[in-house]
Amino acid sequence: MNITILFGGSSFEHEISIVSAITMKKVLKNSSLTYIFVSSDRKFYLIDTDKINSKLFSSGEYKKSKELVLKQGGFYSLGMFGDKKIESEVTLNLIHGRDGEDGKMASMMEFYDMPYISPRLEASALSYNKLYTKFLAQNLGVKTVPYEHLSMNDKRKISMAYPVIIKPVCLGSSIGVSIVREAKDLDYALDVAFEYDNDVIVEPFIEGVKEFNQAGCFTSKWELSIIEEPQKEEFLDFEKKYMDFSRDSQVLSADISDTLALQIQESFKSIYGTLFKGSIIRCDFFVVDGEVLLNEINPIPGSMANYLFEDFEVMLGRLSQNLPRESAINIDYKYIHSIQSAKGKA
Amino acid sequence: MNITILFGGSSFEHEISIVSAITMKKVLKNSSLTYIFVSSDRKFYLIDTDKINSKLFSSGEYKKSKELVLKQGGFYSLGMFGDKKIESEVTLNLIHGRDGEDGKMASMMEFYDMPYISPRLEASALSYNKLYTKFLAQNLGVKTVPYEHLSMNDKRKISMAYPVIIKPVCLGSSIGVSIVREAKDLDYALDVAFEYDNDVIVEPFIEGVKEFNQAGCFTSKWELSIIEEPQKEEFLDFEKKYMDFSRDSQVLSADISDTLALQIQESFKSIYGTLFKGSIIRCDFFVVDGEVLLNEINPIPGSMANYLFEDFEVMLGRLSQNLPRESAINIDYKYIHSIQSAKGKA
Repeated sequence: MNITILFGGSSFEHEISIVSAITMKKVLKNSSLTYIFVSSDRKFYLIDTDKINSKLFSSGEYKKSKELVLKQGGFYSLGMFGDKKIESEVTLNLIHGRDGEDGKMASMMEFYDMPYISPRLEASALSYNKLYTKFLAQNLGVKTVPYEHLSMNDKRKISMAYPVIIKPVCLGSSIGVSIVREAKDLDYALDVAFEYDNDVIVEPFIEGVKEFNQAGCFTSKWELSIIEEPQKEEFLDFEKKYMDFSRDSQVLSADISDTLALQIQESFKSIYGTLFKGSIIRCDFFVVDGEVLLNEINPIPGSMANYLFEDFEVMLGRLSQNLPRESAINIDYKYIHSIQSAKGKA
Repeated sequence: MNITILFGGSSFEHEISIVSAITMKKVLKNSSLTYIFVSSDRKFYLIDTDKINSKLFSSGEYKKSKELVLKQGGFYSLGMFGDKKIESEVTLNLIHGRDGEDGKMASMMEFYDMPYISPRLEASALSYNKLYTKFLAQNLGVKTVPYEHLSMNDKRKISMAYPVIIKPVCLGSSIGVSIVREAKDLDYALDVAFEYDNDVIVEPFIEGVKEFNQAGCFTSKWELSIIEEPQKEEFLDFEKKYMDFSRDSQVLSADISDTLALQIQESFKSIYGTLFKGSIIRCDFFVVDGEVLLNEINPIPGSMANYLFEDFEVMLGRLSQNLPRESAINIDYKYIHSIQSAKGKA
């Protein structure tokens, strides 16, 4: 299959997107890959698949690559002798954070009628913002970690007991996240979080909580990954997560009861629903007192959580054959015609 | 001021967007207008302001106009001798329904770094979908009309008393909307609504309910329109709303108490918050037993609800000077550099 990998973006996670993208070369061995880089100033560049490496970007050398524009049907290189379309069967949105996970790329690929693997616009808007994720989960009957919401101009006061974890609502990869153990440290943690976002959520920090990750998608059937119990550290900081985004070898399934596994799988399916069709997402769950709580949705997980699937590449092929498309709208100018008739202009 | 008006789109409301756009010529008398049309197949055309009329579109003659593409900074016409940027100080998103109100255009204008008047991506996603509007209002403490949510595959059963009103979650201008007076008519009304959308909301239909419309925006201060009590018919069907979109003369303020006016204004401000910054929206409220209930948010109201403002054009100028912009993200490749150092590659 001919897959375009879209990566980079004007995002705090720009660099991990590059790592994710390079990792896909090892994962998608039987596909023909086209790499399209979104620079930090949001231009599109066609990157030579044979030459891709992290230094190409950090050195700025990518600027010598051919620049592309979006037009109906896909990416094009413009030239004196006509525009040339970059052939692609499907585009994989691998931009983590802003531009990719917030719904911008999905909007553009939808508008330009390109087959693409990514959460769609609505799914992106609801999962990119941790506060809206809570709304969504509540509406779907999926339990979440309890939370409080603070805006930048709100009084800096919380009612839950310490320790708590502070998260900017719109960032992934632990950016701007702090654990606060005592009231006296709240202010500083909020300063850090508000550097990145106007809104934060505050959740109880649960020492030693059991965490489980479930990835999956819906093709013509449910395709769920194994459930992983991720390595336990207080929480992964940016650099550790960064290394985490280059994972490409399979991991072991968590040692849990069938009942718990089923609960996690059912919660995943409830969240994914029809909303996330066309995407591969990873949901991170906590288990507290035997109850499965949604912690976070990763709408574009690092290296697409490939390491959790038995045959990621073949599944990607099935997903490509089962992408949701917007319905066509037939515009026949019936109303304008009837008004013109009424005015005697037709 | 040089204002670009973006209109059309792949939307059930494509034709009323054309009407809205043509109306703006009468409203924005002191501005220099550039018209950019989004055809039903989603191409961009530069329309001659002097020649704009509805027949240009219904006849297909618009296809002779110059086609444009989006690149960093705005719209460009491409040519053998270089690309020419279409100069514009601000773009007014006047695409009703899909493409405009769902957040696609906002995504694209944000990505391409164009100053634009429109609800931003998140505001669009939350207001385009009537179910998510309920979530938003609940979270903000704004009361709404009670509702039930039905998905296409749900059992066709409601628990509220008749008469009810059935609305597809993602359409405006009364498309697919029905009033159902008896249980036996529910099925047909749902068939109609599900023609347009996979999800519907069901609300009580309140005979003779008092309705009030409040439009406004936040520039450097709140700029609220007069409150209108719209003409009362059972509900406006598409054709009546269509005529409604060409309104350009001021209307009278509703004859209500100062207390009620204040309640409506405060509800409007709560909904608009910081989320809708950069846009002019209209909220439609019901008053039931003295209580103000949000009925709907119109994120891109017909002809921008210009007829509710004293000096719409001057306000538009102030709004253009107070548009929210995404924060810049500095990408310094620190992590990639440090990994390269660790590997001895730097």
